[in-house]
Amino acid sequence: MNQPVRVAITGAAGQIGYQLCFRIAAGDMLGAHQPVILQLLEIQPAMDMLKGVAMELQDAAFPLLHDVIATDEPDRAFAGADYALLVGAKPRGPGMERADLLAENGKIFGPQGRSLNRFASRDVKVLVVGNPANTNALIAQAAAPDLNPRNFTAMTRLDHNRAIAQLADKTEYHSTSISRMVIWGNHSATQYPDISHCEVAGQPATSLVEREWFKDEFIPKVQQRGAEIIKARGASSAASAASAAIDHIRSWAYDTPDNDWVSMAVPADGSYGIDPGVIFAFPCVCSGGDYEIVQGLDIDNFSRQKISETESELRSERDAVSPLL
Amino acid sequence: MNQPVRVAITGAAGQIGYQLCFRIAAGDMLGAHQPVILQLLEIQPAMDMLKGVAMELQDAAFPLLHDVIATDEPDRAFAGADYALLVGAKPRGPGMERADLLAENGKIFGPQGRSLNRFASRDVKVLVVGNPANTNALIAQAAAPDLNPRNFTAMTRLDHNRAIAQLADKTEYHSTSISRMVIWGNHSATQYPDISHCEVAGQPATSLVEREWFKDEFIPKVQQRGAEIIKARGASSAASAASAAIDHIRSWAYDTPDNDWVSMAVPADGSYGIDPGVIFAFPCVCSGGDYEIVQGLDIDNFSRQKISETESELRSERDAVSPLL
Repeated sequence: MNQPVRVAITGAAGQIGYQLCFRIAAGDMLGAHQPVILQLLEIQPAMDMLKGVAMELQDAAFPLLHDVIATDEPDRAFAGADYALLVGAKPRGPGMERADLLAENGKIFGPQGRSLNRFASRDVKVLVVGNPANTNALIAQAAAPDLNPRNFTAMTRLDHNRAIAQLADKTEYHSTSISRMVIWGNHSATQYPDISHCEVAGQPATSLVEREWFKDEFIPKVQQRGAEIIKARGASSAASAASAAIDHIRSWAYDTPDNDWVSMAVPADGSYGIDPGVIFAFPCVCSGGDYEIVQGLDIDNFSRQKISETESELRSERDAVSPLL
Repeated sequence: MNQPVRVAITGAAGQIGYQLCFRIAAGDMLGAHQPVILQLLEIQPAMDMLKGVAMELQDAAFPLLHDVIATDEPDRAFAGADYALLVGAKPRGPGMERADLLAENGKIFGPQGRSLNRFASRDVKVLVVGNPANTNALIAQAAAPDLNPRNFTAMTRLDHNRAIAQLADKTEYHSTSISRMVIWGNHSATQYPDISHCEVAGQPATSLVEREWFKDEFIPKVQQRGAEIIKARGASSAASAASAAIDHIRSWAYDTPDNDWVSMAVPADGSYGIDPGVIFAFPCVCSGGDYEIVQGLDIDNFSRQKISETESELRSERDAVSPLL
């Protein structure tokens, strides 16, 4: 049995956190041989609820769970953290402009980045789930100059999984038959779910579906899936978001399969012409605990335009939070 | 890869169901090589929410999940079911007497038993989670004369896990160091959590803790843990209950460890003097997909009295629903 690793989760008493805690403690994220210590952060008004979550984790008697820390102090939650799942964020309130939203989240992710910078493991892998996720990740990264900037990522895996599920449904294959899906850009309605490189049971996806379906149904369906879930459930995606966060970290820690990749929002490095300075979703291959952006994919004019639109949005989000960077 | 098995879950859009669906789809219950088909039942007013759960399950792109059926018809939910997790139940409302509560639940579990009898796999393993769980299981069993009566069980594993967690906390060992815990009787405040046979890292638990702690702190703490969680969380135990349900089925399907057992509420067969005709929690050893009640444990006078109290409650519950049996 390995030594326990420390997994920090913010917003841990919320619906996504409630799913994450139990699935991570059960071994879904890091495997059946990796003990974990959960370090759970909440804001002060949610501390009673968080204590209830910690009690339930105790009551589940998970063999892999070695300790639970429940706190409202970021410095305690991030102390020695090997993984940090930043879920808690300020949701957009009625009448709130995007600039206000970004500024409010800056007050969360700036201090959390500083705390990670001081107290987390030097190799901490950070995944931002709380929206606006890409720009929140950028804020945390900027506040943590002593950590590896590559280790600040945002979640696009939910969009990636949703895109796979939609294509599987359309082509009547199981999701496991689908490889090389790409989500480009921002985890927002401008994201570009791209099937140009996708294979379905070894056949090019573009040979199995109509171009019109791809442009007029698939893209908006994936972009708007969050709203569709809210309408049905009366609550936002929680379990599927937690599942995607688990998938993101598991791929990052334990490699992507041969001949496939995953979509991760990572610091742009000039690949595909995206300027450094934004956290942008790319196809990534993971190996040995690190990731590489997949290079050399052909980008047609339609894709180029879609990628450009989501890049513009991310640049404008970055400009709105520039005092924090 | 095995053929998919069918897992029916009732009350699937509720908080326990929402945890169960995703953990089962991830392989936590039946392992990483057992594909599943989830057959989810809800009452009509919750069907929109259930459709949202089904959409999120699709969006998680679980490799092991082969299909999801979301329905308000028990006959569809139980068709061919290999496992049936009966979670949905009528909670006690303000001013409701126990007889009323039992009668209301009879209207749920009687028809579900009849439906299982007609449509489920002949080997279906049934776990009742919805309270009053033991007597609900009895009602379902009575309505399913063509199925093996041994396969109707109720959940005591949550109490079992809670008792292990409390003893682990007290003795400062990890929960994995504790074996041979027993919960006797009803999943209610009369349950008897018994450490008489328990070992902590190979030592008798009774040699490590004071008798007063066992009688005056441990027993009421385990009995009242559900209320304590509600007070902290502002909501009843959901994730820990789901986790215990998963543990119950996994033990039943895939064996208990050597030299240990689990607590399962199963049809009494005369063991320990408990009259047949109630579903009673006993220590059970599981092997080859079946369970046996552990025989020959010494029962001291204190334990005998506690077991008798919880047996009395179960008999009186049975008498209250006798028209349904």
